[in-house]
Parts: sequence; structure tokens; C-alpha cells
Amino acid sequence: MLYAQVHLTLPAWIHEEILPEQVYPDDQSKMQLCIRLSALNVEHQSGGPFGAALFNDNGRLLGVGVNRVVAHNCSQAHAEMMAFATAQQRQQQFRLNANGAAVTLATSSQPCAMCYGATFWAGINRILIGARSEDVQALAGFDEGPLPNDWQGEWRKRGIDVRVDLLRDEACAVLKQYGDSGLVY
Amino acid sequence: MLYAQVHLTLPAWIHEEILPEQVYPDDQSKMQLCIRLSALNVEHQSGGPFGAALFNDNGRLLGVGVNRVVAHNCSQAHAEMMAFATAQQRQQQFRLNANGAAVTLATSSQPCAMCYGATFWAGINRILIGARSEDVQALAGFDEGPLPNDWQGEWRKRGIDVRVDLLRDEACAVLKQYGDSGLVY
Repeated sequence: MLYAQVHLTLPAWIHEEILPEQVYPDDQSKMQLCIRLSALNVEHQSGGPFGAALFNDNGRLLGVGVNRVVAHNCSQAHAEMMAFATAQQRQQQFRLNANGAAVTLATSSQPCAMCYGATFWAGINRILIGARSEDVQALAGFDEGPLPNDWQGEWRKRGIDVRVDLLRDEACAVLKQYGDSGLVY
Repeated sequence: MLYAQVHLTLPAWIHEEILPEQVYPDDQSKMQLCIRLSALNVEHQSGGPFGAALFNDNGRLLGVGVNRVVAHNCSQAHAEMMAFATAQQRQQQFRLNANGAAVTLATSSQPCAMCYGATFWAGINRILIGARSEDVQALAGFDEGPLPNDWQGEWRKRGIDVRVDLLRDEACAVLKQYGDSGLVY
């Protein structure tokens, strides 16, 4: 028989660890949240070492995501995808900035080829990135897939601003912890 | 509050229109199914004009997908992503070819930038494509996003075979029907 549905969830600890009303006023605090999400996901073995979050222009949370690939047997359940999908459900809107308000995505590591493509459809204006793809490969052993040569330029061409290497060392520390564990979850 | 889950479904007509035990022995019959899925999705206004399907090496269906972006307010609910996710749920395996059997993806139109990236993680060996990205843009008005220059070569480098322009005219006819309707669903 064919399966005709998929149900993806964030781990239960999200509700205990994340205060939905907290404000994240600057780039640093947004990235700190993502790195904390990545570290909590490793600590709980609820998914790979990746965290992402979406914010409106007041620094309020629209959604968060962590990697859930193994937990859900779903190759698309990356942190950024989980954040996009849950924020879009909350807003009942498939393009998060459709109402004209600017939306920021922060992610503990550079998006892979799939999540990179997804950023163009999710409705975001600005992207904050912690660790680089080369860090993800070297420290945690994950392939990131092929990107356009000027992947940052393609964002800017479409009006999406990007800042890279934000708290890169802190983001890398979580990747290394996961990689050194030798476990896959 | 934060939303912590997402539930994505294929339309109810899938169970009436698709015989899960049917065998699709050759490239043509696989693509015909995808084009039929895309046409049915337009006819039922249950999503955009895109259909995808996954097959094992006996030509048996592992899963199907149609576009559900508007229906589910979810920018990642493209046909290929729905096929990957539902087939992976059925197999309880995030890499569809992990058991060593070859898996074919057929899709009525060239995958967008997101679905392109997703093909690298889903566990597939061969890709059949109907309409081109330029057809999707010209006939149905959808942006397909930026790809690596040698996007087909990147697949082949990783052992994924690709065949393009398969029943392209038939696939384009459905794109045109959607585009000419002036509706968005």
C-alpha cells in the first residue's frame, strides 16, 4: 500500500527549554539560541547537531527547528526545514514574509543543498550562519551537497541578506562533540 | 506559542486513482504516472501541476507525491518531497536505497533548487524528468531557483543517473493548463 501522510515533530524538550515570548534583539542572541538548540539536540540524542530559528523584525520567535532525520526516518527533516514548516503552520502562510514584515533565519551551520534551495521559497529576508559547510564535513562527517558557485550572491540577487561565521567557534564545538561521540542519531 | 509539529498529506483521491500493486516496467510508464498525477492534482485543485513517484528495481511503487504547498501552507510540500517523505515512512528508512536495491525517482518537471538538493539525501539511483525548468517558468510561472552550473553532472558524480525530456510535451500540457487557468492552488 501507499503511505499518504507524514507527521514530523520537534522533540518534547523544545517546550521546556524554549520560552516562546523571549526577545532576541541582535544577531548574537539569535545565533546563541540556534547553537543552544543544536547542543540540546545532541544532549538528548533527539537528532543531529543542528539548530535553526526564525524571527520577526522585533526579534520575536516565529519558529524553531532541530534535525530529526533519524528519529523520523525522514531525510528532509533538517533543522531549517523543521523551522520553516512549523513556523508556516503557525502563521498559516507558506511564505513567511508575505505580510510584508521582514523575517530572519538563523542556523547553527550553513544550510545544505536542500535547505539552501528551501530558503528561496520560505519567505525570508535575512540569513545568519554559524559554522561553515567545511566545518560540518570535517567535524561531524556530513555531506552538504552541491551549491551554485556564488551561493551567497544568489541570495543577495533575490533580496536575501546573509551574514556568515557568526559565533563559528561555538557552533563548531557542538559539531565536534557530535562527531567525536561516534554515534548516529 | 511555538508550533512543534507538521502533518502533511496527499489528497484523498490518491487512494482511488493509484493502484499500489501496479507495475511500471519502463521509463515511459513511470513518467506517464507522474504526468497523470500532475493532471489529477490540477483537476482536483489539490495543489500545483506537479507529480512524482518512486519505484524499486522491479518497477513497483514505493511512493507518490503531488504538490501540496497551498493546501498545507507549507513551502516544502513539493511533489518530490512528498514522494520522498511518504516512501521513507513506508520503508521506515531515511535513505530509500539503504538496503542495496536501486530506486528510481520520476518527476513530471525538473526538480527545483530545494528538491534538487533533497535528491542527494533521499537515497535514489536514477532520475527521470519530464518538463524542463524553463517550461515550468514559461508555462506555469513558477521560479525554480539557482542550481549548480553542471547540475546533471553533480548527480552523475555521486552515482545518480539522469534522463531528461521524457514525454516533455505531455508534461508541458499540464503546466500550460494550470498556467492558463490563472488560478493559484
